Amino acid sequence: MPAPVRFELQATDPGSAARTGVLHTPHGAVETPAFMPVGTQATVKGVLPELLRASGSRMLLANTYHLALRPGEGVVARLGGLHRFMAWDGPILTDSGGFQAFSMSDRASLTERGVAFRSHLDGSLLDLTPERAIAIQESLGADVAMVLDHCPALPAEKSAIAEATDRTIRWARRCKEARSRADQAVFGIVQGGAHADLRRECAERLVELGFDGYAIGGVSVGESPDEVRKAMEVTSPHLPTDQSRYLMGVGRPQDVLDAIAAGVDLFDCVLPTRNGRNATCLSMRGPVRLRNAAHKADPRPIEEGCDCPACSRFSRSYLRHLFLAGEMLGPILASIHNLAFLHRLVRTAREAIGEGRYVQFRAEALEALGP
Amino acid sequence: MPAPVRFELQATDPGSAARTGVLHTPHGAVETPAFMPVGTQATVKGVLPELLRASGSRMLLANTYHLALRPGEGVVARLGGLHRFMAWDGPILTDSGGFQAFSMSDRASLTERGVAFRSHLDGSLLDLTPERAIAIQESLGADVAMVLDHCPALPAEKSAIAEATDRTIRWARRCKEARSRADQAVFGIVQGGAHADLRRECAERLVELGFDGYAIGGVSVGESPDEVRKAMEVTSPHLPTDQSRYLMGVGRPQDVLDAIAAGVDLFDCVLPTRNGRNATCLSMRGPVRLRNAAHKADPRPIEEGCDCPACSRFSRSYLRHLFLAGEMLGPILASIHNLAFLHRLVRTAREAIGEGRYVQFRAEALEALGP
Ligand SMILES: [Zn+2]
Ligand SMILES: [Zn+2]
Repeated sequence: MPAPVRFELQATDPGSAARTGVLHTPHGAVETPAFMPVGTQATVKGVLPELLRASGSRMLLANTYHLALRPGEGVVARLGGLHRFMAWDGPILTDSGGFQAFSMSDRASLTERGVAFRSHLDGSLLDLTPERAIAIQESLGADVAMVLDHCPALPAEKSAIAEATDRTIRWARRCKEARSRADQAVFGIVQGGAHADLRRECAERLVELGFDGYAIGGVSVGESPDEVRKAMEVTSPHLPTDQSRYLMGVGRPQDVLDAIAAGVDLFDCVLPTRNGRNATCLSMRGPVRLRNAAHKADPRPIEEGCDCPACSRFSRSYLRHLFLAGEMLGPILASIHNLAFLHRLVRTAREAIGEGRYVQFRAEALEALGP
Repeated sequence: MPAPVRFELQATDPGSAARTGVLHTPHGAVETPAFMPVGTQATVKGVLPELLRASGSRMLLANTYHLALRPGEGVVARLGGLHRFMAWDGPILTDSGGFQAFSMSDRASLTERGVAFRSHLDGSLLDLTPERAIAIQESLGADVAMVLDHCPALPAEKSAIAEATDRTIRWARRCKEARSRADQAVFGIVQGGAHADLRRECAERLVELGFDGYAIGGVSVGESPDEVRKAMEVTSPHLPTDQSRYLMGVGRPQDVLDAIAAGVDLFDCVLPTRNGRNATCLSMRGPVRLRNAAHKADPRPIEEGCDCPACSRFSRSYLRHLFLAGEMLGPILASIHNLAFLHRLVRTAREAIGEGRYVQFRAEALEALGP
């Protein structure tokens, strides 16, 4: 099978494991490091495709669990696949549902066979085996599919994490055997919690199986930032340098900068759009809370110098008014700015890596961002 | 004072009172008949300015009562006026608050002096005299301001309607005396219910006072379509042919076609955006209800042949999914289509008038639209 997705390594930073590259996909190339906005239900909440693109988005994430339940992957396939369905002609990655087995554990029962979900919509059964996770993702037709993984809740006994890691590897094999689309990449997911030996073993065995890229999973599940950093640092060295690395569920600017230093290429997170809907905006001077009375007649944009569709013409005063008035345009514009902010952060990181000054860039950025 | 807004009559229809024209304003020209979307709180719900323009919008309406309460006309003025505040560089018309004295009558007490509102937001007092209505609108800085009128609830005794009509004329005089901006037009509002003699008297006395255009008020307040038609038919002949005529609050396609036949140039209504938010779309084959199960895998756009930002790339299947999933993009796209539909209806009416075949056009359109 020819590789549908190819990672081209470009620059590496002399002072860290940071690197730049290009992810080539059937729907175009993405310069990395790159941040992927989350379109859980085949839409990044409130943001039309052209505004996503204007905010700097190049590759999106969508959710297998949610789309399988509604509208159903068969409907998406009949409508021509996910790209056509949601009118996004750039690359898309779909997750596998493994994270939902963790985050909706009260509705999920996990066995060696797979994960059985009771739908949060109508209580119906979604029987998500590794084979079915791949089949659904092939129907959706994203550029990158993810293997079904077992993501344990932390803190947990090492034995429980080891068991989940072993299962993740067995499921990864089943996913690999089940895949049939030549035009879709499949990424493996490395589990192992904060245990260097488990992470290493999982990475090596997945690489032995051979995937088109590798994700670092089991983060954003209750562990501390230090544990996330450790998970990345112990995992990255055991992943091929010529394939892309994706850190799942991370989008806090400070964490993104750390992960880039550890050699991560791809990120996704609901944070920019969720915060945006709550009137909290990202900026290089720390958060801007748009409901604050201080912004009542504030003519400034959310962030000076930002050329996003929000900042280029709307004041904090107007945005505050929209939020107080409960108008949809508030969440829309704040989401757009937050996406533009993260894309810009990652783009400037990319430039710094290209110029061999990532360590300094990161230190200055962390200083400006605050805690 | 030079006329800031000038109406240029173009074609008249041989078979009806329908006419085409151009409304010249400080923010550009608008071909009439024209439909104005409603941006109550300085935003057409969920629709960014560029998407309004793409849907065919040329002139918007905003609400004095709502904006005076929040964010306050002083804030809007400090931010550079309403156009700058909401980033809409086309013409804007502001209503006067007279309609809210009717629609929120439980919060309003009306005397000869004006209308005293208890704010629906925090109970504070808004003392809306004719002078204050003009002052607020001058602070907002729309291209067209409306006089404060007394809009009686129907059905009502003729004596009550006569009293409201007389007060409307007295208030119109006070508004005219209070105005001070040379770059803002003020339109008078004709009241009189379904009484030809009252409408005629009101129109003649307002014309005697002299305004930059005239609105037909007191419709959409509980009367039947026949009464609306009658109000228009008895009023239009007493208005100057070289000034624009605005029918307030009417946007049902069938009613718009009737009003055009009676010589109306401008319309506004929340219907397209409100219906859109409720998943009901306008089409020349009658309403399309996007939540219907029939659209589950329907690849068709809302309306075949529509080139709006929704129909040009999204299927009914996708839109149905968005509404069922509670995603903002559903209301956004349905609102955009509904605006595009009404703008197209009015544009094709304009073309038919220009070609002297409005009567036939209207008959065919009413037939297609259904009841
Ligand atoms: Zn911005
Ligand atoms: Zn359309």
